Amino acid sequence: MTTESSSIIIDGKLVAKKIRDEIASEVARIKDSTGIVPGLAVILVGSRKDSQTYVRNKKKACEEVGIESFEASLPEDCTEEDIIKHISDFNSNPSVHGILVQLPLPQHINEEKILNAVTIEKDVDGFHPLNIGRLAMQGRDPLFVPCTPKGCMELLHRYNIEIKGKRAVVIGRSNIVGMPAALLLQRANATISIVHSKTKNPEEIIRQADILISAAGVPNLVRGSWLKPGAVVIDVGINAVDDSESPRGYRLVGDVCFGEASSVASAITPVPGGVGPMTIAMLLSNTLSSVKRIHDLK
Amino acid sequence: MTTESSSIIIDGKLVAKKIRDEIASEVARIKDSTGIVPGLAVILVGSRKDSQTYVRNKKKACEEVGIESFEASLPEDCTEEDIIKHISDFNSNPSVHGILVQLPLPQHINEEKILNAVTIEKDVDGFHPLNIGRLAMQGRDPLFVPCTPKGCMELLHRYNIEIKGKRAVVIGRSNIVGMPAALLLQRANATISIVHSKTKNPEEIIRQADILISAAGVPNLVRGSWLKPGAVVIDVGINAVDDSESPRGYRLVGDVCFGEASSVASAITPVPGGVGPMTIAMLLSNTLSSVKRIHDLK
Repeated sequence: MTTESSSIIIDGKLVAKKIRDEIASEVARIKDSTGIVPGLAVILVGSRKDSQTYVRNKKKACEEVGIESFEASLPEDCTEEDIIKHISDFNSNPSVHGILVQLPLPQHINEEKILNAVTIEKDVDGFHPLNIGRLAMQGRDPLFVPCTPKGCMELLHRYNIEIKGKRAVVIGRSNIVGMPAALLLQRANATISIVHSKTKNPEEIIRQADILISAAGVPNLVRGSWLKPGAVVIDVGINAVDDSESPRGYRLVGDVCFGEASSVASAITPVPGGVGPMTIAMLLSNTLSSVKRIHDLK
Repeated sequence: MTTESSSIIIDGKLVAKKIRDEIASEVARIKDSTGIVPGLAVILVGSRKDSQTYVRNKKKACEEVGIESFEASLPEDCTEEDIIKHISDFNSNPSVHGILVQLPLPQHINEEKILNAVTIEKDVDGFHPLNIGRLAMQGRDPLFVPCTPKGCMELLHRYNIEIKGKRAVVIGRSNIVGMPAALLLQRANATISIVHSKTKNPEEIIRQADILISAAGVPNLVRGSWLKPGAVVIDVGINAVDDSESPRGYRLVGDVCFGEASSVASAITPVPGGVGPMTIAMLLSNTLSSVKRIHDLK
């Protein structure tokens, strides 16, 4: 089965590779000229398979660009105090420039309390409310922008997609993707609308989008007929759907029906290979920004 | 000249009076049972006539409900350090439960630096980025909500206007009104769009609004024909336009052509007498919340 595609496929894998190469050069330059090695610390609690995979991938990505990895692995039944102790150590460790707490945390742990313990200067995830507040405000700048929405914006920039004055619709209002994505689009002078689970007739609003960022986590939610012809589609959804023909028994699809959408959109990200690879690249980028800010490097 | 009006006129003056009466009762109850008197400190820099009027009105409103007023007046040419010194004193003064820096500040003063000096526990203006961040995030709560957007929401609530699932459009994205108003509407499960100076064809989006909050500061920007029949209109604009028939030589109008809109909207705030009186009422309300939180009162 082939689909006639008229749209540009936004190659996140390629862009992410390019960014990682750029970061590797910068890390090498900084090391050569100052001896400073950027460091990223990850805190992993419990033994979720998916979290372990993410953390392993992050460590590998760090190694490849020359960022030093630090890790604290805590057992599922650890206390909030145990986690905060490790965060405090990383906060005061001068070799660590970014701290990341792998989510989700176990049920008995207060996520807000833990995330607030990360010093804002090393909050490379950009989830601290002070960073989000600055992101929302005109005339203020966050120290860090959350990685996935930053990756979406980076894809738009690298494909020279104009944002100013455009209608942008974000599907989903999560703290991690939807909400910060909308704030970033607005900072870039788009006119934003945010669609969520309580929205009636979402397709009516989505059809107005020149730029659509979907972070709903619902497989094939957005049909081709929901799109304005020529829209740019950034699909953040990574959803596993059963597929007996796949060796793993499932395959990954986005929030947007790619086949339908690619004949309507002017540009679209595939899943996988679109936004996914950008998230870790932006984490590395935030860690690099952090080391530069802390040491006042150019 | 009479205008045929089919809409409910949202009487902000009346609602604000009711809220001030409620606050006065609560303040009296707290004083009787605990001896604690809520206190609000205002910092005024320079001698702008309009700022002096605002500060005087705030003091008067405090007196009327039994909140104690504190004031620091600094000369136009004072330094940032002078202002911060007064803020620090109020931060540590246990009789002060809310601190307000009257804006705008003189050109040579860094507004961000000054506002950040106010302890978040007494930031009754709700302008601290930490408060704004919490306002933007799901599962977090700000300590204080900015007064004018809070007043808009209070008007909607007191007139039993349902917000959940409704299309809401905010005109303007200022830190003080538009942006926090949009965040509040989204927290109440509206589907929001934010129109601003870079928006093309704003009337197309405004026409989709079940609820419109206009904070553009442009007299008579929104025409009756821009509204969806039955829309609820909250007009935050207070714009002075020349009027030779007025003894003062000007009159105040909103962002919305009231005459045209009142025959299309289902409910609308007048200017003056709509949102205006709510702002100070919400400031008193925030001061009351603050004293209750600080002293853990019910």
